[in-house]
Amino acid sequence: MSSSSATPLHTVDLIRKKRDGNPLSEEEIGFLVSGAATSTIPLEQLSAWLMASWIRGLTVDETRALAIAMRDSGEKFDPTRLGKIAVDKHSTGGVGDKTSFLVAPIAAACGVVVPMISGRALGHTGGTLDKLESIPGYRTALSLAEFESVLRSCGASIVSQTLSLVPADRVLYSLRDRTGTVENAGLICASILSKKLAAGLDALVLDVKTGSGAFLRKMEDAEMLAALMVATAEAAGTRTVALLTDMGQPLGRASGNWIEIAECVELLRGERHASSEDVRELSLRLAGWMITLGGKASNVEYGYKMAESALEDGSALAVFLKMVDAHGGDVSVFDDLSAFHKPDVTRVLNAWDTGTIVDMDTMAIGWAVQRTGAGREAKDESETPSESLGWDPVDPHAGIAFHARRGARVEKGQPIATLFATTAAQMDEAEARLKAAIRISDEPVGAPPPLVSRIFDRESAEAYLANPVKVKKTRTRD
Amino acid sequence: MSSSSATPLHTVDLIRKKRDGNPLSEEEIGFLVSGAATSTIPLEQLSAWLMASWIRGLTVDETRALAIAMRDSGEKFDPTRLGKIAVDKHSTGGVGDKTSFLVAPIAAACGVVVPMISGRALGHTGGTLDKLESIPGYRTALSLAEFESVLRSCGASIVSQTLSLVPADRVLYSLRDRTGTVENAGLICASILSKKLAAGLDALVLDVKTGSGAFLRKMEDAEMLAALMVATAEAAGTRTVALLTDMGQPLGRASGNWIEIAECVELLRGERHASSEDVRELSLRLAGWMITLGGKASNVEYGYKMAESALEDGSALAVFLKMVDAHGGDVSVFDDLSAFHKPDVTRVLNAWDTGTIVDMDTMAIGWAVQRTGAGREAKDESETPSESLGWDPVDPHAGIAFHARRGARVEKGQPIATLFATTAAQMDEAEARLKAAIRISDEPVGAPPPLVSRIFDRESAEAYLANPVKVKKTRTRD
Repeated sequence: MSSSSATPLHTVDLIRKKRDGNPLSEEEIGFLVSGAATSTIPLEQLSAWLMASWIRGLTVDETRALAIAMRDSGEKFDPTRLGKIAVDKHSTGGVGDKTSFLVAPIAAACGVVVPMISGRALGHTGGTLDKLESIPGYRTALSLAEFESVLRSCGASIVSQTLSLVPADRVLYSLRDRTGTVENAGLICASILSKKLAAGLDALVLDVKTGSGAFLRKMEDAEMLAALMVATAEAAGTRTVALLTDMGQPLGRASGNWIEIAECVELLRGERHASSEDVRELSLRLAGWMITLGGKASNVEYGYKMAESALEDGSALAVFLKMVDAHGGDVSVFDDLSAFHKPDVTRVLNAWDTGTIVDMDTMAIGWAVQRTGAGREAKDESETPSESLGWDPVDPHAGIAFHARRGARVEKGQPIATLFATTAAQMDEAEARLKAAIRISDEPVGAPPPLVSRIFDRESAEAYLANPVKVKKTRTRD
Repeated sequence: MSSSSATPLHTVDLIRKKRDGNPLSEEEIGFLVSGAATSTIPLEQLSAWLMASWIRGLTVDETRALAIAMRDSGEKFDPTRLGKIAVDKHSTGGVGDKTSFLVAPIAAACGVVVPMISGRALGHTGGTLDKLESIPGYRTALSLAEFESVLRSCGASIVSQTLSLVPADRVLYSLRDRTGTVENAGLICASILSKKLAAGLDALVLDVKTGSGAFLRKMEDAEMLAALMVATAEAAGTRTVALLTDMGQPLGRASGNWIEIAECVELLRGERHASSEDVRELSLRLAGWMITLGGKASNVEYGYKMAESALEDGSALAVFLKMVDAHGGDVSVFDDLSAFHKPDVTRVLNAWDTGTIVDMDTMAIGWAVQRTGAGREAKDESETPSESLGWDPVDPHAGIAFHARRGARVEKGQPIATLFATTAAQMDEAEARLKAAIRISDEPVGAPPPLVSRIFDRESAEAYLANPVKVKKTRTRD
């Protein structure tokens, strides 16, 4: 009947096709994505298509077509001129997840180049860019030319996304947020991959979180997303693996901004702390894969060893310091990590009972961290970080340091966490939330889940997706 | 996460609820409809809700809540001040469907009042208002005060919808047209009933078309819509029956504007033509129900007899002429029905073969009629007729008169139709389409379907809807 375009493809016909459960072709998806990027298809039509896609599900082919069309909707970064294999790591988001500051310098120290375009704190999860900006002077908003220059000199650069990259994703993500079409494996996968593919990566390592602090709490949903991302990225020509990793408690001992940077600097200096061992181990495993997919190690065991050496011999620290300096950051703040930390309000949370920490509701802990002032409640317009859209500021010194972890035996009155907040009122709310999220009991505690529960490569991802029962289950309900 | 309102209800939550297959409450639907009427909920959120509703289906309770909320979104007509029972008839649209010009005066002549708010030609179907406007001077755009005055003096009035009635339906219908969410029983039902309920009807007779000229060609879809409309309108307090009637060939012998009015005037004068018998019979059956539901006959057989008397004794004709006059129409044009008919181009279509007319693709014939100049391709903004939106004009004298009908034996060269068009080019296209839509063959022809195949009252409609297999089938696919 009506149509919004004079071209042979009519938006309403495509919406109806998807509505009726039929997959759209690459050309049809390209038409819709291009209409989103150029504002030639009205938002109400795009949102009808997104809702039909959410309910009917996207096939792997549709997901790939969507990721590629979004990738191609704007400017792209071309790392081939750097003369090195470009590898990145992407995490689906968690609490205390600071591996980027370790894996980027480790992998760069081992000979690959890491062009990392990162995001900001959102809801219960922290943001890589916010953490970096706790270093005085660190500029995350580089032009593509500056990005290339830092990569050339340091081998790694962590920046915010420019407005010119994947404009279609910015439009569609913002729309999904307003129209209840966020939590869908195909749409999430295409959105993430479009940004990664726009960075021209040769290889990609995905850290898909599971457990109480993950966006997708259910193991089968996380598995579905991981398999779909691997299959899609591989089909688009990027060598990819996905690790399913535990987010059943905060990662490491610090959740916040500066305090996470400080924890990483200690690890980069070769210092070991029992409560940071999980961050160290996960970073080495992720970096091991980055090095291996980047062709610098013949197998992942050797990649892991190379990563460990780079951490222990100071070469990763050297890359990190050089990168911070190249971004305008003041590396002198690393001279005394505690002296630089100047929170407005500090409070120690003592154990209110004697027993074992049997449970940490990590999403709730993430919200407690957010309430200290370290995070932000909701993004302004889009998941896509864009400096021009005016993000709410975060408090670089706020956050929570954990002194006891899941499974630990604690005595009543023993400090289990220290909170750093912007105001006393924020402190009260954060403390109440943190307390409610931690359960101390004499119940027996089961064995903790493994740090890495499953790894998908191309073959295992395709085998997983070929199982229609699981695929259907995950697609039709969240 | 995000929301567009400070009230306790959040649009995104409601979209997600419907997306997940859960029915929305009356309050929740009221919130969305009010947001549509007042433009406080953006179109992209409304369209996500409409798509989720299309795919998941609406329950009877949701359909009723939607119809009532749309009814209450604007001004309403209150016929109780007229001191008579208010009854209307609504048809789902067909080709040559001119029963309104008969049933309104017949029912009014029998003592009920008929406040009929009608539509315009759209796609393959004709429009009651366009047909009336072929009478010089007839004004369809009356204020509610003028409407009431005509009803008081004549007992019947056929008008266009004012902008102040059901504004939410205008917004949502236009959105459905652009977002591929038109053909859904619940949404169609609520849209139709909102307008009928806004006229304050005591009773309503629905003419749900089936067969090749109907919007819903499949019998089970038409049955579902009919049952849903009856159950919904009854639940909203309006006594309602639905007749499923045959649209497997054009109704009567004329399809166009003036030529349909002329056919009705002949019938109102008591003239009988074999090729108009179906219009006469269907009108009497519909009017019989209107009279019965309006409390003027103790049963529908008696209602039918009263209707027939009103047609034969001239009392219906008197109401019709009075109504046309009250609307400013020039009744002198009825003095010589053929003399007033002045088409620009006339052409006779002769049978191209000897045989039987075994098939008439009535939707295709409807498009042939539209191409003569009698109709319009698509509405401008909304199904809702609104004079201020500027409808394309139609040719009052264009259309097609049929000289032979389905099942008739024809000789090669015998005239089977006369076409009246605005231009020679339109004539060529209309003739080609008409010819392609009629099949002459020596195949045996089955018995034609009954004029009225099924009647739903409250009880039988509820019984039909209680059969979950049929309901599910019809709801999930068109």
